[in-house]
Amino acid sequence: MTGVAVPVARLHAFYRAVFEAFGLPPGHGRACADGLTHADLAGITTHGAASLERLYVRMLRDGLVDATAVPRVVRAVGATALVDGGNAVGFVSAEFATRTAIARAAEHGVGAVAVRNSSHCGAMGRYSALAAEAGMVGVAMTNLGAQALVLPPDAATPLFGTNAVAAAAPTGQLPLFNLDMSTAVAAAGRVRAARDRGERVPAGWLADAGGATVTDPAEYFAGRAWLRFLGGDPETGGYKGYGLAVLIDVLCGTLAGAGVGPDTTDGRVRSRADADIGHFVLVLDVGAFRDLAEFRADLDRVLGAVCASPPADPARPVSYPGRPEHEHREAARATGVVLAADVAAGFERLAADLGVPAPWEPGPGGAG
Amino acid sequence: MTGVAVPVARLHAFYRAVFEAFGLPPGHGRACADGLTHADLAGITTHGAASLERLYVRMLRDGLVDATAVPRVVRAVGATALVDGGNAVGFVSAEFATRTAIARAAEHGVGAVAVRNSSHCGAMGRYSALAAEAGMVGVAMTNLGAQALVLPPDAATPLFGTNAVAAAAPTGQLPLFNLDMSTAVAAAGRVRAARDRGERVPAGWLADAGGATVTDPAEYFAGRAWLRFLGGDPETGGYKGYGLAVLIDVLCGTLAGAGVGPDTTDGRVRSRADADIGHFVLVLDVGAFRDLAEFRADLDRVLGAVCASPPADPARPVSYPGRPEHEHREAARATGVVLAADVAAGFERLAADLGVPAPWEPGPGGAG
Repeated sequence: MTGVAVPVARLHAFYRAVFEAFGLPPGHGRACADGLTHADLAGITTHGAASLERLYVRMLRDGLVDATAVPRVVRAVGATALVDGGNAVGFVSAEFATRTAIARAAEHGVGAVAVRNSSHCGAMGRYSALAAEAGMVGVAMTNLGAQALVLPPDAATPLFGTNAVAAAAPTGQLPLFNLDMSTAVAAAGRVRAARDRGERVPAGWLADAGGATVTDPAEYFAGRAWLRFLGGDPETGGYKGYGLAVLIDVLCGTLAGAGVGPDTTDGRVRSRADADIGHFVLVLDVGAFRDLAEFRADLDRVLGAVCASPPADPARPVSYPGRPEHEHREAARATGVVLAADVAAGFERLAADLGVPAPWEPGPGGAG
Repeated sequence: MTGVAVPVARLHAFYRAVFEAFGLPPGHGRACADGLTHADLAGITTHGAASLERLYVRMLRDGLVDATAVPRVVRAVGATALVDGGNAVGFVSAEFATRTAIARAAEHGVGAVAVRNSSHCGAMGRYSALAAEAGMVGVAMTNLGAQALVLPPDAATPLFGTNAVAAAAPTGQLPLFNLDMSTAVAAAGRVRAARDRGERVPAGWLADAGGATVTDPAEYFAGRAWLRFLGGDPETGGYKGYGLAVLIDVLCGTLAGAGVGPDTTDGRVRSRADADIGHFVLVLDVGAFRDLAEFRADLDRVLGAVCASPPADPARPVSYPGRPEHEHREAARATGVVLAADVAAGFERLAADLGVPAPWEPGPGGAG
């Protein structure tokens, strides 16, 4: 069994039914399903189907998130807002924050929203894309609460999470520009995937407490090696990826009042749980600065010139962030999202446990 | 002759006199001197004294910038502004934009300002620091207009500039957090410095059209090798540094209406001149989100925990962006800024040419 292709609409309905089975109101289940299918469609396998049970179902079963919590604005000054997620599933809080920032930007030209008391919210590109689809530039960041997973330059212990940022801008005819990146060289999910395939990871991803290169993913899971920040060694820019991670912690943690990576001094319990996470969303209304149609045409020209530029290898054209994800999305919409065999088996069990239809059988209403 | 130590106040007065000799009004000369001494004090040698003649005096002499231009807000919607720099020296436009963004943030909680028609504005950390010194979080970006210096992953020709971003946040007792980075692995000035010292550059900084590693800086100046983006190879995150550079071009170029890296289709003359550059400044008023004093204390706790964490090498403590620059600043304030012999010799000639006092002699008023 190498995988199962599932139509996107069925997969979305399954996700929604799973979250609703845990008591999430329908709109919240839809937000979660949107976030997961965004990752499935973009080909971000670490944040789609494979994360449903490992992250979200586990946290709901263990009571680590509040299924019925409703995020709310607890402070609103001008074009800004501070949101308390109420420990809802992160998808719900991050989408609420993004829609709040879009509304602020529509009124003030720019909107900035910080979120505290949230949890894992999936791939950040879901939120930047929401803004871009509204004709705005969106930047969405998350920290990982008090989780310390990544080794700063010169450090013998990890101090920050795989803090992530996504940024998207509206185009005309071309796929959205949408950058979605963690500030680590590679996300933890890719180390897990290498381990599961029995492979080593490329040199540069992991280091031990002395800073030496580690390529065995088992060392990461044994707590003897940690992810490195984008840039790697100091002489190739490791301070830059690290600095970006600190910036994200400043905005998502310190500014929002959520957990922060290296905060060990106030008795906060450190764990790998996706708790006390913060987000930050910035939205710029293009129309406040210039004509949106002209912006779209100009950005198409830039990105078109990128894709038309001579490649080092004729078999691999030059691309830009958002374009490969768009191509994966078009293919997945046509032929379905391919689930790995173990993920599909997990969905089968989950469907039976929760009494919801698996994504490969028609729902009770016969839809699909 | 290994170098000349000059008191900061003398150096600042010299810079200011040089710019004023070219016709800049006093406030504009002060802005330029502030920008250059920021870099001198922070130890960013590529953007301080060594850049005065190579960039600014050359452009003023050649009439590539307008000495008397006054930047102005040409569009203002809500918490945003669009600034036309009028081809003033970039220091002037970038400082004006930052002060405008700080004023917007004071009123709306956040301010966002895009600048077109600017030129090289020095180290971006000058502008992020201005916001942090006002109790705000500042993010300042610049593109390089239509200059194409850096090779995207898979590309055989450079497509973007060494687009840069700085971000600063206010602390309590500790030095400001201030990240100041280009999205290339290393800035062009560091390649120049290696060439001038007769050294090779580290593997990872430069690549040729086929993507192969180049360590001879002469190849860069011969146009046969180009800078790489932060992250390097695709498997170690090269798409991330590249994506950040595109984001900066979207905000500083496309959104502002300034030049953009890969725009070759509209007859724009490509050059290495620092013309048609754009900037983008975002400022967040901490007080809009939470109590500023508590924020300062919390950020001190985070950064203090970073610096107290165990280092891989006891001789090299863990640090954070802004702290090494602060230490350099304290030392330079005490003992003077050390100018390289060739830079000092250039200043001697420049002082004679322009009829202004060199920084190592008392001014006409006997000050210093």
